[in-house]
Amino acid sequence: MSRAAGYAIIVYVIEFKIIKKSKKSGARLGILKTPAGEVETPSLVPVATQGVVKTLTSEEAEEAKCQILIANTYHLHLKPGENIVKSAGGLHNFMNWRKPLMTDSGGFQVFSLGFGHDLKVGKILKFFPGKKHELVEKNQQPKFLKITRDGVLFRSPIDGREVFLGPKESIRIQEALGADIILAFDECTPPLATFEYAKKALERTHNWAKICSKEKKSEQAIFGIVQGSRFKKLRQESAQFINSLGFDGFGIGGDLGTSKETTMKILNWTIPHLDESKPRHLLGIGYLEDMENIVKKGIDLFDCIVPTHYARHGTAFISEGKPAFAKASAGKLDMTKSKFLKDKNPLDKKCSCFVCQNYRRNYIAHLFRAKEITALKLLTFHNLYFFNTFVENIRKKIKDGRI
Amino acid sequence: MSRAAGYAIIVYVIEFKIIKKSKKSGARLGILKTPAGEVETPSLVPVATQGVVKTLTSEEAEEAKCQILIANTYHLHLKPGENIVKSAGGLHNFMNWRKPLMTDSGGFQVFSLGFGHDLKVGKILKFFPGKKHELVEKNQQPKFLKITRDGVLFRSPIDGREVFLGPKESIRIQEALGADIILAFDECTPPLATFEYAKKALERTHNWAKICSKEKKSEQAIFGIVQGSRFKKLRQESAQFINSLGFDGFGIGGDLGTSKETTMKILNWTIPHLDESKPRHLLGIGYLEDMENIVKKGIDLFDCIVPTHYARHGTAFISEGKPAFAKASAGKLDMTKSKFLKDKNPLDKKCSCFVCQNYRRNYIAHLFRAKEITALKLLTFHNLYFFNTFVENIRKKIKDGRI
Repeated sequence: MSRAAGYAIIVYVIEFKIIKKSKKSGARLGILKTPAGEVETPSLVPVATQGVVKTLTSEEAEEAKCQILIANTYHLHLKPGENIVKSAGGLHNFMNWRKPLMTDSGGFQVFSLGFGHDLKVGKILKFFPGKKHELVEKNQQPKFLKITRDGVLFRSPIDGREVFLGPKESIRIQEALGADIILAFDECTPPLATFEYAKKALERTHNWAKICSKEKKSEQAIFGIVQGSRFKKLRQESAQFINSLGFDGFGIGGDLGTSKETTMKILNWTIPHLDESKPRHLLGIGYLEDMENIVKKGIDLFDCIVPTHYARHGTAFISEGKPAFAKASAGKLDMTKSKFLKDKNPLDKKCSCFVCQNYRRNYIAHLFRAKEITALKLLTFHNLYFFNTFVENIRKKIKDGRI
Repeated sequence: MSRAAGYAIIVYVIEFKIIKKSKKSGARLGILKTPAGEVETPSLVPVATQGVVKTLTSEEAEEAKCQILIANTYHLHLKPGENIVKSAGGLHNFMNWRKPLMTDSGGFQVFSLGFGHDLKVGKILKFFPGKKHELVEKNQQPKFLKITRDGVLFRSPIDGREVFLGPKESIRIQEALGADIILAFDECTPPLATFEYAKKALERTHNWAKICSKEKKSEQAIFGIVQGSRFKKLRQESAQFINSLGFDGFGIGGDLGTSKETTMKILNWTIPHLDESKPRHLLGIGYLEDMENIVKKGIDLFDCIVPTHYARHGTAFISEGKPAFAKASAGKLDMTKSKFLKDKNPLDKKCSCFVCQNYRRNYIAHLFRAKEITALKLLTFHNLYFFNTFVENIRKKIKDGRI
């Protein structure tokens, strides 16, 4: 449990303590203890794909109330390579992030660089009635990947470089990276999979989960990942099977259906089969309007690119104004618009973040319009602080018995 | 002298106090008092062209030991426009920079978007023997500008937009921006000007200096700018004339010859004619190896893009290693090189900046190679801190009688 300054001697172990269970919903308030410190749950897990929260330093990520970050196995394997990170004393030391850290397994890239890329779809399909959606059939392969029994041969759509990632490789890389919590390698399926494709993919994912469980030699915590696409039968089977393997926690992954309602159904089918004493992470979901709903279903952790990705495209999330999300009472501002050049208000009057205390919309709009990098950083900081505060309020609501 | 929180009611006045004159050289140690605080001189004036030190917040610029910044009249006139800045309470409030601030006049853009652009040359010509250098003759005009008696018609090389800037316009804009120190509008000549061209340009610059001096209604301090290219006669004439107009200080501008030796000659010709009680700013010069030399000639202020511009291209300035500059004992690292991925040292072991205290070369190299924006910010911060500390040491040397 000790961490020496500079280089770490770490006994990896997590402990999940549920402080309160809601009487009104499946929500629970918890503390996730890791060797690098504690996470109050429910918690957002902001994304540090390449070992950095884009545009910020690790100190700034902490100041923006981030409790835990998730880095990416596939990306860090390509650049700088896990051996570089390992020789730097592991990812915590490499990026000077002293709080809890997860790595995902690379399984999401099976989707995002595979069928997600080919079909131009996200994890939740935007279904347009009348539009003919091409389905993914049983033995179909994506254009740039080859998915086999043993893993996935990636071919970079950028330079054609080949990278093989399977359960063994993913665990080996994640052990070298040295996060507190690692994820089993899985196949994240597309929302356009047929039942037959999803069933076949799930067999692979389950086989890989067993291999991951056996392969891991480190004392890092490992979460198993439930898949099964939008199919009740598969999701239930998967939850039961993954639950049986003795993981330290669970990820719920893969495509989450053709609407947000389907996502909620998937949680209903899945969660009752998961050991309730272990943390549950909904992978890749974290719009403001979704948070309270997924927390009510019993989700403890969720990672999402929204606050950081939107920031870099000029969107500020705010608590005031015309609410874009009825339930969340939150709105969005497009800070690239010229009208904000004359706006002397902070991004959000109610926000106590560094940016809202020191800068005004007029300046931030100017920086965006003048293509100044500082703009991206100011908005990333604010959005992360805003999202983390939003989740903090959800925790308060659970504590106070309001949800 | 008072500055209310939020909006400023400012009596602009500067006071320059010389604390010590070197017995070994022309160097002097001073305090430049401005309504926004004091600057210990000699001082670097880092560049905040568009009202921001690229990649940093104003708080970070201060933490990197910046005492005073220089913003750009031409760029801020185009984006966001001086009226936006004025309505935000002036540039200090707009960018939340509470320390001293200068604006240049736009005169440098007459060069950089004019003959500098056309001939692809900088302020100091890199003279290649054998290469035929095209000279700028008496009545020649640059491709994208029209220089007249009254000012300069800019045509943006990007979108062709026309902007007229003359002495009256420049002063009007700089008054709206509200920096503590403003500069007279001048014509910065190319290092390939013939004597005839330089003489003609100097007549314009002197005429504009008189107009600027009369036009200014604010209590801001204004520096007159000495021009005259590489010609002794013109430089002396210009120094005497500008000195006679009662400015609060002096800029030494324009092309600075075909070598660094010529630059030193120009300072020798100019400085004896300038009122020694007033501050002297060498415009656009600030390589590490130049600093001590120009300070010894009696320069108090100098602005330069080197620390920030080089940072964004991956260059870290360090005090160790094989010195790139014999006199300055300083070296450079190209942090984009793969060899640094395995280097566990800080950028500079002797540096006490935030970056050197918290991050290692391996991580910074990774961030550059992974095209992460945070890399640009870390290196900008370090370089500015390093340059400002370097000048701090020059001040100590003057104090201790070493130079």
